[in-house]
Formats: sequence, structure tokens, C-alpha cells
Amino acid sequence: MKKQNVRTLALIVCTFTYLLVGAAVFDSLESETEIHRFEVLTDIEQMLIQKYNISTDDYRIIETVVLKSEPHKAGQQWKFAGAFYYATTVLTTIGYGHSTPNTIGGKLFTMCYAMVGIPLGLVMFQSIGERLNKFSSVVIKKVKMSLNCQKVEATELNLICVVTTLSTLTIAVGATAFSHYEGWAYFDSVYYCFITLTTIGFGDMVALQKDNTLNSKPEYVGFTLIFILFGLAIVAASLNLLVLRFVTMNTEDERRDEAEALQAAQGAVRLEGDVITANGSILSIPIVIETNSLDEPNSQSVCTCNCCGEIFRSSSYSPDSSVYMPPSPPPRVIPLKSINHGQYILGTRRRASI
Amino acid sequence: MKKQNVRTLALIVCTFTYLLVGAAVFDSLESETEIHRFEVLTDIEQMLIQKYNISTDDYRIIETVVLKSEPHKAGQQWKFAGAFYYATTVLTTIGYGHSTPNTIGGKLFTMCYAMVGIPLGLVMFQSIGERLNKFSSVVIKKVKMSLNCQKVEATELNLICVVTTLSTLTIAVGATAFSHYEGWAYFDSVYYCFITLTTIGFGDMVALQKDNTLNSKPEYVGFTLIFILFGLAIVAASLNLLVLRFVTMNTEDERRDEAEALQAAQGAVRLEGDVITANGSILSIPIVIETNSLDEPNSQSVCTCNCCGEIFRSSSYSPDSSVYMPPSPPPRVIPLKSINHGQYILGTRRRASI
Repeated sequence: MKKQNVRTLALIVCTFTYLLVGAAVFDSLESETEIHRFEVLTDIEQMLIQKYNISTDDYRIIETVVLKSEPHKAGQQWKFAGAFYYATTVLTTIGYGHSTPNTIGGKLFTMCYAMVGIPLGLVMFQSIGERLNKFSSVVIKKVKMSLNCQKVEATELNLICVVTTLSTLTIAVGATAFSHYEGWAYFDSVYYCFITLTTIGFGDMVALQKDNTLNSKPEYVGFTLIFILFGLAIVAASLNLLVLRFVTMNTEDERRDEAEALQAAQGAVRLEGDVITANGSILSIPIVIETNSLDEPNSQSVCTCNCCGEIFRSSSYSPDSSVYMPPSPPPRVIPLKSINHGQYILGTRRRASI
Repeated sequence: MKKQNVRTLALIVCTFTYLLVGAAVFDSLESETEIHRFEVLTDIEQMLIQKYNISTDDYRIIETVVLKSEPHKAGQQWKFAGAFYYATTVLTTIGYGHSTPNTIGGKLFTMCYAMVGIPLGLVMFQSIGERLNKFSSVVIKKVKMSLNCQKVEATELNLICVVTTLSTLTIAVGATAFSHYEGWAYFDSVYYCFITLTTIGFGDMVALQKDNTLNSKPEYVGFTLIFILFGLAIVAASLNLLVLRFVTMNTEDERRDEAEALQAAQGAVRLEGDVITANGSILSIPIVIETNSLDEPNSQSVCTCNCCGEIFRSSSYSPDSSVYMPPSPPPRVIPLKSINHGQYILGTRRRASI
């Protein structure tokens, strides 16, 4: 079976196993508490129903009113600050669900908004993440130079350390602020920060949902939004450093395979004394073949060999450029078609362009 | 300013503008309805409080009980099926929040679980997405061949059409099933599918939360989980096709720049009659320089030129391999250091390895 298929299957098996293990652990951790909690809540509910002799229908109405009123009790959710907060949770896919659109227009616009906004956000955060990594590598280099280290370049390990430190700091600072402003326990604040920055966004704990904070504390609103956006940039830096290579692995392999297939289809170059050219003719004279990058087909050869003629100049091979190649940089294997682009400098004064 | 910085800044400006515009639109769409809804809900609340003469403290307790009881009323959330559903919402970052851990252990395990699970899920979905695109391109090719088309290869436009059709079909089928099982309006079901597959997962509408469905309708639970996982694979295929190239853009450019910088630092090769080598010495004899791919430093040259000696074989330049290069395929520009790796075949019988 093809390498990419095996890898994908292995990933599916791994993920399902991981989900099964997770489910078993969550079951064992939460199941008992759940039963106990439900018993306690039902007892209180029954006690209150009996105390006020509330009819079943009326209690259902109370339930609906309480559930629907929840976002409203936290203050106006759709004034500009709240709407900006909501738009941020859509674009980042956090989706707390603390306030959700109730009109058809709002739902429709959310869908259209997400369709453009999510890819835009994804590209922006990855772009910032990559810049952050670059900036870190420059700072590391300068620090190493000032410390007179032998190897001054930032290694991947250095960058992983920086990103881990930055992530930990962001969560620590965020948790401190949220536990102060929201009155949450520190552990709960860490949990909130984590659930937010992974974009899971359960919505069991949501910042800015107390005492009309959205409209009364602009500095705290600003802090929360900056925390979310900056935090997600740090997460993107980690993903850029650690995960992106695995995400593009299949695509890269596919390109390499396509290039190899192309090469195989055009015939192999053999240099066993004789040379078989792309069009099948056999050359016995010494030959220079330049393997330029695919993307610079017209760059000139640096070969100044004056012993070979214009062997390939009149070659008629024209590669089919309509073949779909997944969006990623060129393959590591250099397909034979690039041979065609090599130009041979016959003792003339030309500048190399590699 | 560097191209990558300009791009990142442009993306930040774009995203913030997009957020501002979104906030303004959401404000205008939802604000009025919100005020009206709150008035109606408050009226009903007051009416019920007066009817049963519920004290303020007791009403607060009722509110808490109703909010905390909500997930329990839908049936046991943490038995295996529910725990699996929860684990899926964590791994995929959907995070409905329909049921959230209440124990310290559950919260702690959720964080650890997400830290490994999210990257795993990301890589798996991208891997499936890429395979789906590959499969589509094979099918398109076969269809075109059977239709005797001139160009049989699948173009990007073909693939975009396939992915769009598949996404639309997935949402249409999902929405039909959910509106049937959950009793939602078709538009609401489409909205639910969209919010789920974009991983926003507000949690305002959650499947499997009615009449203990999680434990009583295994076939519907299976359908929902397959819908989520298959749907996310389709979304991943779209992202792989349309967005991944933009995500890796900065990283690619960075590699290219690094390579160019390396090249500049080592000096340029000039072929104006004389040749300046990497270590600065001037050669007046004809010279062959091979530009192999960076990742195949030891691959042999296809040059069979017998007119030049082992000029570079004794070269002392040794490139520093500790330099951090972002995780992505090699740059399009071939740095001068690769010159060093070229081996010159001097009339011997060797096989080319391009």
C-alpha cells in the first residue's frame, strides 16, 4: 500500500484509539460525580417545587426563562463591544456560545462571516506565529553572540523552549488577571485560559459575563481581547514549530511521488559510459546536465564546460503543466524535465544566476 | 520592510477591519431583538415570581439549579457514549460545552488530553483531507479518460468543485437527519451543521441532547459521530486545497530568504571567463558546478565532463548545519553551499541519482 495511505490509516487508528481511551478515562473520572450531582440538584429542585407548590408546566416555563435569560443577565451582549467579542469567538472558532444569534439574519451572517473569517484568522495567526519564531531566533542569536557561544544560530530546541516559556507565561498572566476580575479560583482560571487558547471554548466559564462588564469595564474588555488574540498567536507559533511539518507531510510526499512518476514516465538518465537523453537517443560524448530548481526553469547554468555542444538546445520535449500538484513547495526530487531547461554556456562571458 | 512582515501586518489590519465590520453588522442585526427578548423574558419571570411569591434568594437558587441541571436532564453525559462524544468535541476543538467536567481530575485530564489530542486530530484530518483530494483527482482523471477528454489530469478547479459539492452534500444530508431526529427547523439544522463543522461549536444547539438519546439510540449516536468526523475530513480537504498554501507562505519565504542570505554570505559565483570559487580563489580553467537539491547533498552529479579536474573535491568549506530552518520543504533558490556536495564523475561508470 502507498506510504501516504498507510500513514493516514495509522493516524485514523491512533486517533480512534485515543478517543476510546479518552472516553474510558472521562467516564471513570466524571460518571460518579455526575450521578451524585444530579441527585443533589434534583433534591433541591423538588424541595423548591414543593415549597412553592409550582405546577409541572410552570416549572418548565421557569426553566426555559432561566436558560434563555442567562446571557441577558450578564448585560447587553450585542452592543458594539459584545458584538466584537462574539465576532472574535467566531473568527477564532472558540465559539463559547455565551451569546448566540437569535435572528435568521444573525445566523445567516454568522455562517457567511465564518466562511471568510476562519481562513483569514487561520492564515493571520500562522503568519504572526511564524514571525514570532523568526523574531525569537534573531533574539536567541544575539544573546548567544553576546555570550560568545561557538554556534550562534538558534536551534529548534531553543525555539521550542522559548515558545513553551511564552505559552506558560501567557496562561499564568491570563489566569492571574481572570481570577482577579472574575473571582475564579486560580486553577479554574488556568483551565479557562487553556480551553480558550486551544479554541475548544466550552463556554462553561466565560470572561466578561459578570455585572455588565462588557459595557462598564472597557480596559478589562481590551485586556481579554488582547489576551485571546496574543495567546492564539503564541499557540500558532507552537503549531508552526511543532505541527505544521506533519500537516504538510502527505502533500509533500505526494508532490515527490508525482515528480518521480513524471521522471519514470520520461525515462531514466543513465550515466554508464553512454547517456540516454530524454527523447531516447544515445549520446556517447561527454555531456553536462544541469539540475536547476523547478521554479527557475530559465536560470542559466554555471557550467562553463567548453567540451560539449548544444546537445539539448533543440530538444522537443514539452512537459504537461496541467497536472494538478497540491499546494506546497517543490519536491526534493528533481524531475528529469528540468534537464531540458539547462543552457550550456559555450565559452561565452555570462553571469551565473544560481 | 521585509516582505513577510508587510504580509503579516496586512493580515492583522485585514483581520481587525473584518472584526470591526462584523461587530457593527452583528450589533445592527441582533441588538434590537436582544432588547425585545429580554423585556419579554423579564415579564414572564416577574409574572411567575409574583404568581408563586418566590423570594429573591429562592429564585436565585432555582436559577442555579436549572442551569446546572441542564446537561443532566438530557440523560447521563459521562457514560461511555457520552464520554466519547465529549472526547470528540475536545479533540476536534468543537467544544459545545453541553457537558463539561466538574471534577479537578476531569479538568486536568481534559487539558492534558487536548494538548496531545488536538495536534493529533489536526494532522489526521489534514491527512484524510489530502487523501480525499488525491482520490478525487484519480476519479476525475478516470472520468475524463472515459469521456475522451484531451487533458485528462484533474485541475485545481475540478477539485474545488468536487470539494464544494461534497461539503454541500454533507451539510444537506446532516441537516435532513438532524431536523428529523431533533425536531429542528431545516435552516436551524443547517446552522448547527455549519457551526459544528467549522469547529466553532457554540452549544446553543447540540445533537444527542434530547430524551437520553446518548444511551437509548446507538444508531443515531453513531451517525452523529460519523457525521462530525467525516464532515471535518471534508472541511480539511477544502482547507488543504485552498488555505494550506497561504498558511505555509511565510515559512516558505523565510527558507528562501535564509538560503539567499547564506548564498550572499558565501560570495557569488561569477562566470565571466574566470571563476571565483566558494573559498575565494580564482580559477581560469573551465569548471563544472552542479546544483543538486539541498536535501540530497550526496547525490552524484550527472555531469560526465572529463575536461575538468577534482577542483572542489579538496575544498575545505563545511556548511554549518545547526542553523534553524523552519519546517517546510527546501527553498527554490539553491544556495551556493550545495556546490560543495557535487562530485565529479571522471569518466567512471556511475549511475546518476537525480
